[in-house]
Amino acid sequence: MSGPRLQVSRRQRATPYTSRVEALGVSGFSVVNHTIFPKGFQKSVAEDYWHLKTQVQLWDVGCQRQVELRGVDAARLAQMMTPRDLRNARVGQCLYAPLIDADAGMLNDPIILKLAEDRYWLSIADADILLWAMGLALGLGLDVTVSEPDVWPLALQGPRADDLAARLFGDELRDLPFFDFRVVDFHGEFVIVARTGFSKQGGFEMYPQGFELAGALWDALWQQGGDFELSPGNPNLIERVEAGLLSYGNEMTRAENPLECGLERYCQLDGSIDYIGRDALQKIAETGPTRLIRGVIFDGDACPACQHPWPLMIEARQVGYITTAIWSPRFEQNVALAMLDQGFWEAGTWVTVDSANGLQRRGKIVDLPMSD
Amino acid sequence: MSGPRLQVSRRQRATPYTSRVEALGVSGFSVVNHTIFPKGFQKSVAEDYWHLKTQVQLWDVGCQRQVELRGVDAARLAQMMTPRDLRNARVGQCLYAPLIDADAGMLNDPIILKLAEDRYWLSIADADILLWAMGLALGLGLDVTVSEPDVWPLALQGPRADDLAARLFGDELRDLPFFDFRVVDFHGEFVIVARTGFSKQGGFEMYPQGFELAGALWDALWQQGGDFELSPGNPNLIERVEAGLLSYGNEMTRAENPLECGLERYCQLDGSIDYIGRDALQKIAETGPTRLIRGVIFDGDACPACQHPWPLMIEARQVGYITTAIWSPRFEQNVALAMLDQGFWEAGTWVTVDSANGLQRRGKIVDLPMSD
Repeated sequence: MSGPRLQVSRRQRATPYTSRVEALGVSGFSVVNHTIFPKGFQKSVAEDYWHLKTQVQLWDVGCQRQVELRGVDAARLAQMMTPRDLRNARVGQCLYAPLIDADAGMLNDPIILKLAEDRYWLSIADADILLWAMGLALGLGLDVTVSEPDVWPLALQGPRADDLAARLFGDELRDLPFFDFRVVDFHGEFVIVARTGFSKQGGFEMYPQGFELAGALWDALWQQGGDFELSPGNPNLIERVEAGLLSYGNEMTRAENPLECGLERYCQLDGSIDYIGRDALQKIAETGPTRLIRGVIFDGDACPACQHPWPLMIEARQVGYITTAIWSPRFEQNVALAMLDQGFWEAGTWVTVDSANGLQRRGKIVDLPMSD
Repeated sequence: MSGPRLQVSRRQRATPYTSRVEALGVSGFSVVNHTIFPKGFQKSVAEDYWHLKTQVQLWDVGCQRQVELRGVDAARLAQMMTPRDLRNARVGQCLYAPLIDADAGMLNDPIILKLAEDRYWLSIADADILLWAMGLALGLGLDVTVSEPDVWPLALQGPRADDLAARLFGDELRDLPFFDFRVVDFHGEFVIVARTGFSKQGGFEMYPQGFELAGALWDALWQQGGDFELSPGNPNLIERVEAGLLSYGNEMTRAENPLECGLERYCQLDGSIDYIGRDALQKIAETGPTRLIRGVIFDGDACPACQHPWPLMIEARQVGYITTAIWSPRFEQNVALAMLDQGFWEAGTWVTVDSANGLQRRGKIVDLPMSD
């Protein structure tokens, strides 16, 4: 893997799995939530893609920090932070939820785990939502404790994840509905296991508490994994783009609102609940978003990494920009996520991609997720 | 430089200087505030140390993001966020200020620039203080706009910084007092120049607004720097430790309070002003902190990087831990910053350092900054 070296210090936290992924030959790291995050092993991204789609992988997602809201006003604070209607949320449910600011700009897109009527975990992407929640709670005088528990998520992803998880925790896990979680026993401790994950290949995310227990859980899964061709892994960029899974900081920032990100189904817009940014979001919804995230497939050799937005042109007019792009071995073309201006959303629309190396490539708009 | 590769994406923002430091042979990056931050060039850390202490360096500190508080309640919000007494702050003054939470835990240690009676910039270390300030402002219903302006700090550090800055901006800059700033003209735009920086070797931090202007300022300084032996640089770990400059995330986290960090002189403890965490901090002050950051010098070969705290022992008892350590060519020993339990603060106290490689080394407590 090319790229500059990452300087590691205490400021960039190791996870319970860091020493384990290093022993397994991790080739690169990223930094998310002040925590180091594996970004590749010996396999190429394409080899890893096929493995993820056919086998099972163990991922160090310890950087998905939990923001815990606990207390009488926990539900109230959770609802203030998201346009998603949480009134009917069940204990045991995972809820993908955009978080927005007062102008409806995206602040994060966690999965919210409802642990109890007065206890929520927000499993966050890269931003200190802890500080946002703390500031709101303090400013509003809410009766809620906001904290970052000592929880270190790991993910088991891929079509054979059920078989491996069942071997460790029993066949009941096979019946766990999508976006539900349950509590399993591991070494006498409760561990939350959720049917979620940052791929569309099936599997689980597990939330062990405490550094030592987390390491033991990784080891137990690893030891059971031999005859499943278990590999260490990490979110696969090809699979993520084809699946239309958005990444906070890449596809969405405070400059984008959830409607532009295609997240309208997670936004309660009828005025029946109160949340930060509601008025701004309703105003945007009245006329509809003027931009929308769409897929793009484009020609040419494997493109470089998209480190800054690449313009999408129709003749001399810029109609959008690509935020993430990579070569797809399945389509044998480059695949990308892009923000497109209104009027250019239709699948099949032809665009020119101004990619980093100055090459102009021919591309077209496609639906997300990208179909076979 | 050893260490894993850093995977770069749009989520990790480039600065206006990134392409320039790449052209100058940057050998590594760190990530601060979702922004990439150079961590070394061709020189060894020791060579760089001597250069910084005798010449002048140009640093990409674009990761020092500004949190702007602007409006009628800007002063009120700024004061709520820090125990430092801001009542007598002058426009044109830079104020080093601990930010704390309700339990007096450290949230950050920015320099606050007072731009106007109703406008402050917090030049922050690694944490999304923007979200903390936004949450407080919204929760408290304050009349203040909280934003991250398009400002890209760069630093000119070293004893010859005055000569270089004067060549570009005139000799008046030589008279700028320590921790004052003034506005200079560059390409017809206002640029704030402050006599501050993350070294004790003198120099300036400059705050150009806009990507293009920032790049032009870098280029202008670079072009003038030839006969000053100007080098690209970055905070030097040896110099930082010897100078006793603390790094948020390394020496201090939410688990430490400002009194433990030796920042009592920045804490108003007489009850005359109100700020978040005041009651907790006053309670700690009544009996005094039970831990304190001190310097340590220890024997042996050049130590590895301190990626997790190293225990400091006196016989079988742990009396503290090291958070940052590096070989000092000046002392010809290793130098470190450490948190020490009460009773073990006296300079000259002997301790055993349990460093990463399992070696036990003999060390002693020293005052900060470390004297010649």
